[in-house]
Amino acid sequence: MANVELTQTLLAAKKAKGLTFADLETVIGCDEVWIASLFYGQASASEEQASKLVETLGLSTDLIPELTKFPTKGLGPVVPTDPLIYRFYEIMQIYGMPMKDVIQEKFGDGIMSAIDFTLDIEKIEDPKGDRVQVTMNGKFLPYKKW
Amino acid sequence: MANVELTQTLLAAKKAKGLTFADLETVIGCDEVWIASLFYGQASASEEQASKLVETLGLSTDLIPELTKFPTKGLGPVVPTDPLIYRFYEIMQIYGMPMKDVIQEKFGDGIMSAIDFTLDIEKIEDPKGDRVQVTMNGKFLPYKKW
Amino acid sequence: MANVELTQTLLAAKKAKGLTFADLETVIGCDEVWIASLFYGQASASEEQASKLVETLGLSTDLIPELTKFPTKGLGPVVPTDPLIYRFYEIMQIYGMPMKDVIQEKFGDGIMSAIDFTLDIEKIEDPKGDRVQVTMNGKFLPYKKW
Amino acid sequence: MANVELTQTLLAAKKAKGLTFADLETVIGCDEVWIASLFYGQASASEEQASKLVETLGLSTDLIPELTKFPTKGLGPVVPTDPLIYRFYEIMQIYGMPMKDVIQEKFGDGIMSAIDFTLDIEKIEDPKGDRVQVTMNGKFLPYKKW
Amino acid sequence: MANVELTQTLLAAKKAKGLTFADLETVIGCDEVWIASLFYGQASASEEQASKLVETLGLSTDLIPELTKFPTKGLGPVVPTDPLIYRFYEIMQIYGMPMKDVIQEKFGDGIMSAIDFTLDIEKIEDPKGDRVQVTMNGKFLPYKKW
Amino acid sequence: MANVELTQTLLAAKKAKGLTFADLETVIGCDEVWIASLFYGQASASEEQASKLVETLGLSTDLIPELTKFPTKGLGPVVPTDPLIYRFYEIMQIYGMPMKDVIQEKFGDGIMSAIDFTLDIEKIEDPKGDRVQVTMNGKFLPYKKW
Amino acid sequence: MANVELTQTLLAAKKAKGLTFADLETVIGCDEVWIASLFYGQASASEEQASKLVETLGLSTDLIPELTKFPTKGLGPVVPTDPLIYRFYEIMQIYGMPMKDVIQEKFGDGIMSAIDFTLDIEKIEDPKGDRVQVTMNGKFLPYKKW
Amino acid sequence: MANVELTQTLLAAKKAKGLTFADLETVIGCDEVWIASLFYGQASASEEQASKLVETLGLSTDLIPELTKFPTKGLGPVVPTDPLIYRFYEIMQIYGMPMKDVIQEKFGDGIMSAIDFTLDIEKIEDPKGDRVQVTMNGKFLPYKKW
Amino acid sequence: MANVELTQTLLAAKKAKGLTFADLETVIGCDEVWIASLFYGQASASEEQASKLVETLGLSTDLIPELTKFPTKGLGPVVPTDPLIYRFYEIMQIYGMPMKDVIQEKFGDGIMSAIDFTLDIEKIEDPKGDRVQVTMNGKFLPYKKW
Amino acid sequence: MANVELTQTLLAAKKAKGLTFADLETVIGCDEVWIASLFYGQASASEEQASKLVETLGLSTDLIPELTKFPTKGLGPVVPTDPLIYRFYEIMQIYGMPMKDVIQEKFGDGIMSAIDFTLDIEKIEDPKGDRVQVTMNGKFLPYKKW
Repeated sequence: MANVELTQTLLAAKKAKGLTFADLETVIGCDEVWIASLFYGQASASEEQASKLVETLGLSTDLIPELTKFPTKGLGPVVPTDPLIYRFYEIMQIYGMPMKDVIQEKFGDGIMSAIDFTLDIEKIEDPKGDRVQVTMNGKFLPYKKW
Repeated sequence: MANVELTQTLLAAKKAKGLTFADLETVIGCDEVWIASLFYGQASASEEQASKLVETLGLSTDLIPELTKFPTKGLGPVVPTDPLIYRFYEIMQIYGMPMKDVIQEKFGDGIMSAIDFTLDIEKIEDPKGDRVQVTMNGKFLPYKKW
Repeated sequence: MANVELTQTLLAAKKAKGLTFADLETVIGCDEVWIASLFYGQASASEEQASKLVETLGLSTDLIPELTKFPTKGLGPVVPTDPLIYRFYEIMQIYGMPMKDVIQEKFGDGIMSAIDFTLDIEKIEDPKGDRVQVTMNGKFLPYKKW
Repeated sequence: MANVELTQTLLAAKKAKGLTFADLETVIGCDEVWIASLFYGQASASEEQASKLVETLGLSTDLIPELTKFPTKGLGPVVPTDPLIYRFYEIMQIYGMPMKDVIQEKFGDGIMSAIDFTLDIEKIEDPKGDRVQVTMNGKFLPYKKW
Repeated sequence: MANVELTQTLLAAKKAKGLTFADLETVIGCDEVWIASLFYGQASASEEQASKLVETLGLSTDLIPELTKFPTKGLGPVVPTDPLIYRFYEIMQIYGMPMKDVIQEKFGDGIMSAIDFTLDIEKIEDPKGDRVQVTMNGKFLPYKKW
Repeated sequence: MANVELTQTLLAAKKAKGLTFADLETVIGCDEVWIASLFYGQASASEEQASKLVETLGLSTDLIPELTKFPTKGLGPVVPTDPLIYRFYEIMQIYGMPMKDVIQEKFGDGIMSAIDFTLDIEKIEDPKGDRVQVTMNGKFLPYKKW
Repeated sequence: MANVELTQTLLAAKKAKGLTFADLETVIGCDEVWIASLFYGQASASEEQASKLVETLGLSTDLIPELTKFPTKGLGPVVPTDPLIYRFYEIMQIYGMPMKDVIQEKFGDGIMSAIDFTLDIEKIEDPKGDRVQVTMNGKFLPYKKW
Repeated sequence: MANVELTQTLLAAKKAKGLTFADLETVIGCDEVWIASLFYGQASASEEQASKLVETLGLSTDLIPELTKFPTKGLGPVVPTDPLIYRFYEIMQIYGMPMKDVIQEKFGDGIMSAIDFTLDIEKIEDPKGDRVQVTMNGKFLPYKKW
Repeated sequence: MANVELTQTLLAAKKAKGLTFADLETVIGCDEVWIASLFYGQASASEEQASKLVETLGLSTDLIPELTKFPTKGLGPVVPTDPLIYRFYEIMQIYGMPMKDVIQEKFGDGIMSAIDFTLDIEKIEDPKGDRVQVTMNGKFLPYKKW
Repeated sequence: MANVELTQTLLAAKKAKGLTFADLETVIGCDEVWIASLFYGQASASEEQASKLVETLGLSTDLIPELTKFPTKGLGPVVPTDPLIYRFYEIMQIYGMPMKDVIQEKFGDGIMSAIDFTLDIEKIEDPKGDRVQVTMNGKFLPYKKW
């Protein structure tokens, strides 16, 4: 669904420039995860963000319309096979019901929005092995009764 | 797969006692999400944790073996239909590849463990609508080359 | 997932009393579709709404906790086989992309909430054959950039 | 299944001309959602509608046969991953049975046609956040007994 | 989904009475296939039809509400395994596109209704082996343009 | 699985010549549905039928081997999304068991062949809306006991 | 789908009597594989065959109607997990296309019937390890052209 | 998975030479079904077999490495749609359990190998309609206990 | 598919007796993994092994027939959700093709038998974290050419 | 998902050079299975390993970035059809629960890592038929309680 060629072009340019997503965060003023989402056709940039990005990566401004359009989103396979991505599927399988109960006990009947939502990744250094910390923050949306 | 009756018994006792998972956190000394996992047959307690739990809930000690055994884990349906749980599936679909790239850029080829792992849920009060904050923290496991 | 017995009990009592969902709308003060959702374990009532409902249907107050709990939602089969329900699947298959484009052209990148959402059904009399009118109304949620 | 290239050509021309689907509604005399369906290969135009469309978009009349043929319809993936489109799947999952009951209570055993059917999208401005209103209107088809 | 017990009760009574569906056709005044649909919870009878049926089968009038309700329809497994039923799936797989083209060439863009629809089965005696003749007759529904 | 290019070539030539499948029926001496099956790679022609067809359509005799080979048959997606084709899937879902019972009551344990089989489509004019009549005729094959 | 209890009863009685399927072949006068099919609800017996079977197994004549009815057939899971049964799935996966080509080269476009069909299993003793020989014999059914 | 182009090349050359698989059996000294497996990328030839084959078909020796490599095997779709191939799936669905019981009664707990395995197809002429005879012969492999 | 009650009975008795699978290995004279397979209905015991097992566990000899019958094997869900079991699915997904190439390079075209097969699990103590060692040993089965 | 062209290039060069994976093990200093994983896009090399590999295979250094990137891993089809690979799926289906029980009895609640993991394949010569020995060795990861 995503524009695979665009993803390849962006990743290749980023590699050629020796830039990390964290470097792009500084330039674009958006979180590195959000920028990676843009690379993978899972988010849409403003004209200004797209311009800065193609300029930074030394790419043609012809890419701007692709970066600003509203993409059809999603990864594809129903159960992902990549081990890193699968672990998030597993977390949903194992902790889905517990999270539902704890969230709804705190907030009532409703959900955590995945749209009014941010996701942050941090490296927590630890002598026993560094740790990945993923912080998801989404607006609570209570079910409307009508 | 999970022991549905055990789950029902535990939830009913908790409701009857007017306790929240946060209250149980104080008693058992473990996070409320972990305790909810125990309720849903997704984790195994020590003898001591199981004893404290049944005592607090006013349940029979006969339940202890069920609480301490190593359960066969997982929710079941391939794509969950409950909206709250689905949002975590959606996050995996939309942010799976971006998370993979950002994590591997920071850590190298490997994954975030879903076993040496903690998950914390907090309510962030916000005048524009309270927010759910989910913090996942898993050890980074680099691929071994052999 | 839903509590099938509860659904059966509620439907049988409603039939025995000769009540329609529209009648219940008048009593409970909520839309008939929402009340039907409650019957099918897809919504949670307040204590007051649940009391009124069991009283109106001549059922035991023991059902109140079931009606006020936060249910695990969803119909189950991936592609529904019932023809009436399938037509809504078909509408999503045929008009999904067109709706996406028209909505996002009017609102920008984002979605229509299915949580902050109402759904109304009306009978439009028509000499050439009566028509079903379904009005869905959901808050637009723009994608957050972070 | 749909002719992806045709879709791309039409969308690109529309963007180049700076036209919205609402603008095309005025030109073609059909609803914007129906026109978007035509763009996505989910509807067939008359010769006259197709001519007006290619003329308005500055495209070749060679596209007319593609626009007037009777397409093989549908989106493809069984459960859509795009969040906007998924919400309509979720509505079917959550409100499918309630809608069935309310519709059949009002009309008897039968269905809402998805063929003798219109779909309208409106933006409802609201200070607490604009709302998407989707109105579906389909002929009720009673089951024939024979 | 269908009420399996009801089906069993009806079939057992019909067997005990030594009646065929064709016999019931004479009594009820509806086609044998339609009556079989009623047995399998795929159609709803009028009060009068249901009364005649239970009387003919020597069953309790308590079954009437089950026979007159609007059932949730469908067989269940996505691809049927029973060889007789599978052949109809195969016909759809092999002749689906050809039927679509021939029907739409004769009628324009639209479908054959499966609701305003009758289905008749006849035995055609043939010295080289008797033949099953299935006649489906459904109203053509043209796509509405709006 | 089918040879999509061959299908496109045949359909385009038929359109260019302004011929219907009914016209081809007259030329080839086979039913229009069978000819449409040939177009969609679901049947194999004799040398003579293939020659007549390419001649009538003004196409190269190079296509004859493709038309006479024994194709690997089938539509592909497990549950079709095109509404016209889906209705035949729905008929199998709703009337599968009833047809099984009526056929087996008339014939004994066995099936209707989908190979020694013909399928005819007729337009039944009707002031209340024209009707599609599909007549399937297949040899009854009794289960062999051995 | 099959009547699991009937299967269990028959197997238990056969075990208690110390009979093999080959023994039953002698009594009933039908092949042991066909008799096993009857045990598993995949075939229907004549009154006489059913009587002989229940008599031989020392079971009640109440089972006769279950043995003579026309069962809804099939194993169930789409891909079988039992290793012995899976091997037949594998043979279809690996040798499906080669068998199709060789059969159709010998017979023309058509299929091997699985209804006018027998299946025989023999033990071929071999010093290097005994071998299972499965002989399938089905009528060739040529595609009808119409 | 299979090398489709190689299959096409081999089939075209065979057709051009007017050879049947039975003719190739004489030349290569292997069964026609095995040779068809080689054509469809489901078996690997020795250097000598591959040489003879390309020579007989008048093809380049460049194809030899493709013919001698160890292919990744299998047909692909989970449930095949081609009617001839599907019948083998149906046989597994209907006769899977009966075959399991008869084989294990004769041999003990174990399976028929699909690797140390041969498959032969014969045409049995019959005035009532020719018959396809498929003989499968596989080594019995008893489960090892350890 | 497996006899869940039997599994529960065996596990409960083993727990009550305070025995490990390793203890049972000493008693029965078979590997602990094979004994666990027997517990889960994935293997069949000899009369003698079954007798020793029920005696050791203090269970009724009535269980012997269940332990000696040839079970229908397999776990069930297509993709397992339990994290420990999933890792073996993941190993197949990630290392399937590499294992195929290395095995076939060493042995030629063929497979590792999963029937003439043993599986051993050992705990390798390691100061950096103990390790699980799984040793699979299966007979190589070369593809037969015929 | 994997880079199929890269795989083909590497395999072709290896074949042309007449090298086995075991030969590459000597050159690269990593296990042959791990090297095969690299060929199939299931592992990432260091710059040095990639350099040695392309040099040994006589390939361009342009391939180095592809060999050192962190691939999206996995085979693809949910249930593999290749017989060699399927056997590992079967082992998971048959021995999944027994392995879970034996591992957790030895180690407690947790899993065998498939990341901090090695896999070794050996040929065990045996007069009754050589055997494949696969040794998997993964770190035990205990579930963290928090």
